[in-house]
Amino acid sequence: MQVAMIQDKILPIDELEPIYCDRGTYFGDGVYEVLRSYNGKIFALEEHLQRFARSLSEIGIINVDIDQIRSRIKKAFDAAGISNAKIYFHITRGSASRNHVCQASLEPNFFLTITELNNDTEEKNKGIVVSTFPDWRWKRCDIKSLNLLANVLARQDAAKKGCAEAILVDETGLITEGAASAFFAVSGRKLQTAPLTANILPSITRKFVIEAAKNIGLEIVEKSITPQQARCADELFIAVTTKDIVPVVEFDGKLIREGKLGKYTKLLIHEFRSFTL
Amino acid sequence: MQVAMIQDKILPIDELEPIYCDRGTYFGDGVYEVLRSYNGKIFALEEHLQRFARSLSEIGIINVDIDQIRSRIKKAFDAAGISNAKIYFHITRGSASRNHVCQASLEPNFFLTITELNNDTEEKNKGIVVSTFPDWRWKRCDIKSLNLLANVLARQDAAKKGCAEAILVDETGLITEGAASAFFAVSGRKLQTAPLTANILPSITRKFVIEAAKNIGLEIVEKSITPQQARCADELFIAVTTKDIVPVVEFDGKLIREGKLGKYTKLLIHEFRSFTL
Repeated sequence: MQVAMIQDKILPIDELEPIYCDRGTYFGDGVYEVLRSYNGKIFALEEHLQRFARSLSEIGIINVDIDQIRSRIKKAFDAAGISNAKIYFHITRGSASRNHVCQASLEPNFFLTITELNNDTEEKNKGIVVSTFPDWRWKRCDIKSLNLLANVLARQDAAKKGCAEAILVDETGLITEGAASAFFAVSGRKLQTAPLTANILPSITRKFVIEAAKNIGLEIVEKSITPQQARCADELFIAVTTKDIVPVVEFDGKLIREGKLGKYTKLLIHEFRSFTL
Repeated sequence: MQVAMIQDKILPIDELEPIYCDRGTYFGDGVYEVLRSYNGKIFALEEHLQRFARSLSEIGIINVDIDQIRSRIKKAFDAAGISNAKIYFHITRGSASRNHVCQASLEPNFFLTITELNNDTEEKNKGIVVSTFPDWRWKRCDIKSLNLLANVLARQDAAKKGCAEAILVDETGLITEGAASAFFAVSGRKLQTAPLTANILPSITRKFVIEAAKNIGLEIVEKSITPQQARCADELFIAVTTKDIVPVVEFDGKLIREGKLGKYTKLLIHEFRSFTL
């Protein structure tokens, strides 16, 4: 008899609930998005849906209706009734017995959570401390996939060091991005961040940061920097959907601007806020 | 109210079953093994458990008792009563709300399946056709983790081309291994395969192949080859737990030995069999 075992319980394999055979768990064979709302309004929904559609397409999940996803998100958001909400959702290729190759006709699994966002104003006002970690991720970080173990290990290392984010450094010694954020440096009137390649997630927040930077007259330079260059920057910050812009005041033990918030970072936070009203 | 949504069903987040919040799905935050039995006897159980323990340790899952895992496997194997069985099991860091960093005290999730193995003697007798694909995997392939999307994409590409396995080629143009197998070339009396680095899974079957090769007097060379070198080899084969040695008769459209099985591959299959009696 073919069997399954969950913790200490043995059961016939046919009695397994499909969720246990989710290709999301077997292979990380799925893609996800994280959105947020500001004051009851979902921010950049269409941008996130567009990126989600691209991620699905890149891994060959072709039988998903984005209009259906949009309406599910809206329905759940209305049901939750949370003003400042974090919206997480993923789609996996479906549930099946474990085999790398599967039928194209599997029904994708959709999963979503909506939770309350703590508006961590302290992080925004005081800034965060970050540390570097090797970028062990795969070579298609432009796809927002469920293969996130490298990110988990980097974040755990950062947490052990009392840091809020891990900044990933590739084999050539260049910073790619944060484990769960985009990374920016300001030097003079120049805003610098890594260019979008297969090693970088095309961050929605990054796009709005660049727009905000243009609005306040900063020059944008899309070119990777080294940790040494980051330590010498005038200002550093990360950008992530759930928190938009968060100043970085310490990088691998080196205080940036003696731990004080930078002028342009403050201006960018202010400018970004205007997008969310 | 914080909510979850599964397909079209909305529910309060507190009512979610823990399996839906498995870090295995959120992040691929877990490790796995595949074993097989020959004629009612599990092959190389201790080797697999040792590798599993290392994988767990490398990703910092520290609260797992390997003796308990061994006894679970044996108990399930006895319950299944399948002579030639495929045994898959994984452990994830546990279930929790989605956050890269989590408590060290989470209870790990154990999951196992035992299924009937089809002894695909046709593959062994006729050989398989393989094609190459870029090695997009992460930089810690020595850890047998649930982050397998790169392997899935490679295998799907191979399947589209009518191939049974994808042979992964890294950025420097060297073959690392198969998407789900070790890869070997025989030239003269020399058996060549990639050396064990962070880019290669320390395959148990590879270890036994090398032992078999020594027994039949082949010279072992642990050095990566290029696809071009593979096309010119005398013999090619892959090695994988569920099938041990499978001859490769065509590589990226080029027939190897005019599609006939090689002498040494046959000898190795025979020698390997003696380990499993």
